[in-house]
Amino acid sequence: MRIDIITLLPELLQSPLNHSILKRTQSKGLVEIVVHDLRDYSVDKRHRRVDDYPFGGGAGMVMQVEPIYNLIEKLKSERVYDEIIYTSPDGERFCQQTANKLSLSKNLIILCGHYKGVDQRVRDYLVTKEISVGDYVLTGGELPAAIMTDAIVRLLPGAIGDEQSALSDSFQDNLLAPPEYTRPAEFNGWRVPDVLLSGHEAKIEEWRLEQALERTKLLRPDLLD
Amino acid sequence: MRIDIITLLPELLQSPLNHSILKRTQSKGLVEIVVHDLRDYSVDKRHRRVDDYPFGGGAGMVMQVEPIYNLIEKLKSERVYDEIIYTSPDGERFCQQTANKLSLSKNLIILCGHYKGVDQRVRDYLVTKEISVGDYVLTGGELPAAIMTDAIVRLLPGAIGDEQSALSDSFQDNLLAPPEYTRPAEFNGWRVPDVLLSGHEAKIEEWRLEQALERTKLLRPDLLD
Repeated sequence: MRIDIITLLPELLQSPLNHSILKRTQSKGLVEIVVHDLRDYSVDKRHRRVDDYPFGGGAGMVMQVEPIYNLIEKLKSERVYDEIIYTSPDGERFCQQTANKLSLSKNLIILCGHYKGVDQRVRDYLVTKEISVGDYVLTGGELPAAIMTDAIVRLLPGAIGDEQSALSDSFQDNLLAPPEYTRPAEFNGWRVPDVLLSGHEAKIEEWRLEQALERTKLLRPDLLD
Repeated sequence: MRIDIITLLPELLQSPLNHSILKRTQSKGLVEIVVHDLRDYSVDKRHRRVDDYPFGGGAGMVMQVEPIYNLIEKLKSERVYDEIIYTSPDGERFCQQTANKLSLSKNLIILCGHYKGVDQRVRDYLVTKEISVGDYVLTGGELPAAIMTDAIVRLLPGAIGDEQSALSDSFQDNLLAPPEYTRPAEFNGWRVPDVLLSGHEAKIEEWRLEQALERTKLLRPDLLD
């Protein structure tokens, strides 16, 4: 799998893309992540500007269509992309099912929004999918791009050591995960539930399913619909 | 404002916390962001381990209660915290209203989840708020912590140059933002809507409101309820 990330702030992405799972999956050759500095495609060679004032006035700057067009066309001439994603708070809400689906892609482009957003023509003619990681406004699309990349890449076969661990995560079965406990069995007067110390596998499984259901009913009844 | 972030991967947070708005707000003294390496509080001085196998068996590791307790108690002895937040996919959904509210805090702790999560006693006795940035599973809570920090800090007075720009963002008025365009007026045969080039302020405002409403009705009717 290959993921191309287009950004105004390539340095901001450096540490998230080069630690933990994203580091390991890249060095194992499971994924190639290429970060492109949009300013390299500026049509203003002197100041490397890629934004301009909005037509019609108003606060904030807008990312121009031309540098994005030039970079995306170049990438598209090199390989076929499954999706060209734009990170935007009004996009389709990113969820585990989207991550699952995108993890089957061969090549993805993620364009990070910034400032007041991009020229609408980028959205109308170049982007194939607009995704929001949640209902909140961020300074730029870099953290959303890192989040999507992490959520997608960790699903690639071989990405995490223990396959079972990903399958039993929250959302994969539409249930929240049950509570977990580890040593010590008692700390500061706070005890681990007896059943978990019982060694009785069937009872433990039953308790976990009960807890997962109860927690889901309480916190996220919508997942059970 | 002060934000303490507790993590197993302090290096992963380095570039997001030291670029763009988070860099500027820290150097302006608007916010102090302190990253704590949880391993410094390990009770296993030799291997600096802070996780252990789950009671009752199963895949994945669980973060231990003791190191987290020791660090949080130390921080609480130094200042009063408005919230001690744990990043978890089954927490309350983070949204713009939560960001607005948290931006009024004086001191916040964000504990980044990892592995299979934390010992439930941390959630029952130490954490005051569990927050999820969205319905997807990530490798750790570091990116969610960076996202929350960014969403909160950019609301602090003086954080972004143009105050108006934050107020006209998506979600602040329960409407998605209208489309934006910038130079050139025509590119690749794609033209900017005439009204934006008309110079007629009232008409432009009317068109923008119409577009915002239409886009919200189409993409996120729930925001209008």
